[in-house]
Order: sequence, then structure tokens, then C-alpha cells
Amino acid sequence: MKQWAKYEDTLEILRSTIKPWSNVQKVAITQALDRYIAVDIVAKDNYPSRELSAMDGYAFKWSQNLSELNLTTDLPAGTDKGLVINENECIKTFTGSLMSEGTDTLIPVENVEINGNKILIKKQVPKGFAVREIGESYKKGEILIKKGAKLGYAEIALLAELGEFHVSVFIRPRVAILATGSEIKDLGEALENPAQIRSSNHIALAMMMQKMGAEPIVCEIVRDKKELVQEAIVNALKSADVLITTGGVSMGDYDFVKAALKDNFNIIIDGAGIKPGRHIKVATSGDKYIFALPGFPYSAMVMCVLYVRVLLNAWFGVSEPKLTAILDEDYTKRSPFLEFTAVNLSVRDGKIYANLDGKKLGSSAIVNNLTNEAALLIVPKETEFIAKGEVVEILRMV
Amino acid sequence: MKQWAKYEDTLEILRSTIKPWSNVQKVAITQALDRYIAVDIVAKDNYPSRELSAMDGYAFKWSQNLSELNLTTDLPAGTDKGLVINENECIKTFTGSLMSEGTDTLIPVENVEINGNKILIKKQVPKGFAVREIGESYKKGEILIKKGAKLGYAEIALLAELGEFHVSVFIRPRVAILATGSEIKDLGEALENPAQIRSSNHIALAMMMQKMGAEPIVCEIVRDKKELVQEAIVNALKSADVLITTGGVSMGDYDFVKAALKDNFNIIIDGAGIKPGRHIKVATSGDKYIFALPGFPYSAMVMCVLYVRVLLNAWFGVSEPKLTAILDEDYTKRSPFLEFTAVNLSVRDGKIYANLDGKKLGSSAIVNNLTNEAALLIVPKETEFIAKGEVVEILRMV
Repeated sequence: MKQWAKYEDTLEILRSTIKPWSNVQKVAITQALDRYIAVDIVAKDNYPSRELSAMDGYAFKWSQNLSELNLTTDLPAGTDKGLVINENECIKTFTGSLMSEGTDTLIPVENVEINGNKILIKKQVPKGFAVREIGESYKKGEILIKKGAKLGYAEIALLAELGEFHVSVFIRPRVAILATGSEIKDLGEALENPAQIRSSNHIALAMMMQKMGAEPIVCEIVRDKKELVQEAIVNALKSADVLITTGGVSMGDYDFVKAALKDNFNIIIDGAGIKPGRHIKVATSGDKYIFALPGFPYSAMVMCVLYVRVLLNAWFGVSEPKLTAILDEDYTKRSPFLEFTAVNLSVRDGKIYANLDGKKLGSSAIVNNLTNEAALLIVPKETEFIAKGEVVEILRMV
Repeated sequence: MKQWAKYEDTLEILRSTIKPWSNVQKVAITQALDRYIAVDIVAKDNYPSRELSAMDGYAFKWSQNLSELNLTTDLPAGTDKGLVINENECIKTFTGSLMSEGTDTLIPVENVEINGNKILIKKQVPKGFAVREIGESYKKGEILIKKGAKLGYAEIALLAELGEFHVSVFIRPRVAILATGSEIKDLGEALENPAQIRSSNHIALAMMMQKMGAEPIVCEIVRDKKELVQEAIVNALKSADVLITTGGVSMGDYDFVKAALKDNFNIIIDGAGIKPGRHIKVATSGDKYIFALPGFPYSAMVMCVLYVRVLLNAWFGVSEPKLTAILDEDYTKRSPFLEFTAVNLSVRDGKIYANLDGKKLGSSAIVNNLTNEAALLIVPKETEFIAKGEVVEILRMV
């Protein structure tokens, strides 16, 4: 019997080979959504750099029990008139306007009555009211976005506020996707007999690469012919940083991916004691990686997360999306391996629950076990049974 | 004092006006990631439609204590030879191959020894072993993807498996984004004085619209001039289903958005008793909507989630992403309103915790309070204090 390597050991091997991904490009911030930033963004100045009004009202110098102010002029937002104020005077000041020299407080329009040029204070405010302090948002030198962060709407808004047009992000690694198998046909191709099925792997993996921040390159599906498979692998590697293959790695006479890797590349991982996907192979070719995933689509999608994402996340400096949850039903493991089982997550009373509602038992071919944002329940090798209510480890898919 | 409407009441008003969004288009499944599907996807057939092998091995008709089989031929995946088997015979059969007529079980290659044409069974398997049953993945008539679902990698893989090339999705509503304010300048424009700042709202909202499944149309920033604001609103509405404006809705003399809405449109929501954003206004123009959000960016981004997303989600048939969490520190409310406060979420031992680490006190201008995937803590109007450990309501941003 084959001795299967431990998953964690295979990850160690993979991680030990990974060199930093230093490929960086500039993109317009409006094109940078969901990209990984390649630099720290540091505040070059305090923001705001001057005191600003946070409401519409009257700027004045606060003193105890002030009941009346003389209105001098107004100061619309965006205007700098270099105004200076004397005691008992005020300037009509709007949301976002500069606080003028000598003022320290804003009394909102709602709190006053107006009598000609007199502003009568009907409701006092504390000193400093409705003033945006210098550096309220951030101080000069503060790290605002850390290298490796995924740029969401708020990070991009912040870059706009900072006046950054072009931002440095990691270039998306190019990931070639090569589905193999004489039984699989591409979309649009005729199925010639009932033994043939539609390939979903190449499309699933392309979508996953998009979600993981890589650039997918979908290759032509290749039949189970030794020379064709070898040639396709070599060709696909030419224009890619990473190659993912599916199929051709198990125990059959037509598993030519296995043979092609053995003959031409440096295999660093040759199987792992996990379910699904124990026939995984990972090889290197210079700085490039080849992930040979099983052909069953559930296996292929899970293994993409368990191995390919580890590489991409290491390159981007992102940690794996592991969390914990409470199992909402009893679970009996069916294999002697470390298992990754599709579950649904839901939240009740601040707790995350995992259940298997709608998940089908069967082979590793069941694509629909991963729909509806399924996550993976991690069941350790030694575990045979998990009782409802126990805390379990969960790995998010993409 | 103005009587502020309850948030829930304003949502009721908004929801009561919403007509179904029936605008549908076909897109290639590879272009459909994160789109909302406009139809139910129903299995037209069982899948698989024939019994298939789940491993590499020998297909045979199972009987008790069988120890030896005669190998007749092999059947590679993708091939249909119309093979039929007799008792004590077997066919070499590969992962994904058809199970031939008369066979019901697959014995894996690992379990046998080969002696010429004799297959010697070293380790028995139960009847039906390693066979993918008809309909294992899904049965004819099963609903596989529900109308309104967001298409993830697995849904798209499933569509590929089903042989669907074009899928019906909801057309992205066009959302025009019009930032107003004489103090705000677009990226690339020179700041003329220290009272001017960079606009982040138009870019933040454009990114949020992308994330929410809408198509943003960013308009030119418009200064606080009555005629300019009016004209910009009318123009922006021409090519959009929804218009979001920022700024110009509070109590100031230059708040011309307010005036433009009052003069020209049917205001359905005029303020709400919430913090931030109580000056929100929502108007309709035929079937079109105008959301007039405050100018402070934190307010604008939060209000986009609290109102604009409600419309979009109603159109797509999606529910609001509310959840519960456990507050990880004491919280004292500072306003008399229903509050939405930026928090960080984290998971420990199957529980979701919310904390305010790194969140800055101050005005509603602080963009960086929403970075790092911040969510919103919902603090009810009546609540003044929440103790560490209490279960709280949370609304996700985008």
C-alpha cells in the first residue's frame, strides 16, 4: 500500500520552494478593485490638514454663556478668503468649509435665530463643537493601507482622497488551465456518445483564478494520448507562470499527465493523504509550477483551493481563509484520510453553524455540492465522528 | 425640531414603490461571474445519465466471495463500445468510463493482481463499489440554481456541465453618480487653495455599484451653483436607471440638490433618524430613483448600503446581508439616533466578534473607518449602552 504524505507536510514542501512574487504594475485606482496592493500607503500629510467645519452653521471663538454674535460674512466650502475673526463675531460657515483664524467652534444653524446681523444663540454647544480637527482622519506618517491588502471600495476611496491616480498592485500571475480526458468535451462541441460529458473543470478553474487574483489562460482540452498531453503541457507552460492540469493522475493506463510530469519536471509533491484529491501532483519547472489535479470536478475545485491558492496567497502575502464554526449535525467520516467536506455556513446569535443540508453523498464528481457559497469542513485524519455542537475548522472556498 | 422618520418606515416607503426588475440579457457563462441569474436552472436529465466508473479498475457483476475474473477487454473513458459482460468476466474500466451492461461493481486496480488474462481479487469490495449511480449529481427536474442567485465559480461550473453556453442574467441597472460640492476636485485636477479636497465619493460609489451588481456611470463633479446642479441632475437621469448624488442636502445656503429635488421630482423620503446620514433624500422620476446622499464620504458609503442597495437587492431578489455577532468591548452610543458604526469582525471558536479596533472617533468624513472589510454595528435608537459580550446586529458593507 502506498504511504500517503501528510497534507501539512506537502504544504511545507510547497512553501519551501516559493520565491517572493515581486512583479508589480501600476493601474488606475478605478481599475484596481480586488487587486492586491504591492506597497504600503502612508499618509504624506495630516488629513484634514486644516480645521474644517463638520456642519452648516456659524464659526466663532467659544466662551462661556455667549448668547449673541455679530455676523461678518460667509465662507462657502472650497473657498479660502484668509478670514480672521474678532471676539463676539462669527462667520457663516458650511459643511466642509475652512474654520477661519480665531474660531474654534461651530454653532449649527438649528441652534440659532437670526436677527439682521445678529445671531442669537438659542442652544449652547460645547467648545470645539462640529469642528473636524487637523488629522482627524489620519496623521502624517500613518500607514493607511498595508502591502498585500486586497483593495476594496473603501481602500480605493481612500486612494482617491489621497490624490493617488495610479496604484502599484501585484501583476496577476498567469495561470494556464489544461483539462485532459478523452471523455470530456468543450462547450459547443457535440457529444458523440453517452460516455462523453461536458468539461466543467477548465471553466470552474478559470473562474476560481479570477476570484483568487490570477489571470486564467484556458487551453484547449486534450485527449488521453501520451504525446498530445506532453506537448500541451510544454506549450501551456510557455506563456504561463503556473499550469493547472486536471485528470490523468490516478491509476489508469491512460493517465499520461502523471507520465509527462515524471519524465520532464521536478515533482515536489506526489500524492497526499486527503479526501478528495489524494492523487495530486505538484511539479516545478524553473520558477514555474505545475499542479496536476484529479479529473473529478469536486476534487479539482477543492484541490485548487488546497494547493494552488496556497501558492498565490504566499505570493500576495495573504493568509488562508480559515475559520471555526459549530457543527450543526452529527458527522461520521467515511474515509481514513484527512477530509474536506462541503458544508453550508449560517449565523445565529453570533455563532457560525455548519451543516450539510442538500449535500449529496457519492463520488468526487458532484459539482453542485459546491454551489451556494459552500465552504469546506476540515475533518482530521484521526477523527471518525464529530458530534453536533462541536467546534470545527472550516476553510472558505472562493 | 424636525421629527425624523424611522429608518424602517422609510424603507417601507421605498419598498412600496419598487416594481420588479425584469430586464434580462444573455451572457456567456465565462462572463457571468458574480452576476445575478434571472431564471431557475432545472436539470433536463439525470446526471450522470448512465452509470459511470468512479475509479480505475475492473467492472464486473458482483457475487459473494468472487476471487477470480476473466479479463475480456478494456473501455477507456469517453468510449462506448456497447459491451456486455457474462458471469466471471470483467472489463478494464477507467475513471469516468461507462459501466458496461451486466456490470454493477468496480474493483480498483489496487485490490487485484494480474495473471495473464486472469484478474485475482486480493481485497474484496462491496456490491456497487466505485460506481457513480445514475442521477448521483442530480435528478431530472431538480432545481439546481435558483433565480436571483449570484453566480459563483461553482454555479458557472455547473452551467458548463449542463452544456449551457449563454445564461440569462439581470441586466445591471445603470447608476449615475454625481458628486456635488465647490470644495471637491477630481483626480488630476489641481487643488487651488487649502479649502479644497479630493473627491472620493464618486469613486467609492462607483466601486460599490460594481460590487453590488450595477453599472456605474460617473458624472462630472458639479459645483454648488443652483442651475448647474439642476442641469446635471436632469442630464444624468437621462442615461441612468438610478441617480446617486452626494452633497447638497443639509442645512446650508448652497445645498442645491435639495432644492433641485423639491422643484422637479417626487420626494418619497425626506430624512431619517439615523446616524450617519440623516439628511438623506430619495425621490422618484417615473420608474427612476434619485438617492441624494450626504457629502461626507463615510456617510455617503454607509447610506449607499442602507438605501441604494435595498433597491438593487429588491430588484435582484437578494436579501440584505444582516447577521449577528458578539460585541467584544463596551459601546456607548453618542447620538440619540439609530446608529450604524463601523466595526471589524473576527471569528474565534465558532463565534463572530465585533470590535472597534483602529476606528476613529470624529465626523462622518473618515473614509478609513471603512477599510479592512469593516461591517456596520447596528445600534437601535433606544439603546444607550451595549456591554461587552452582548449579541448585536451587524450589516455587512460590500
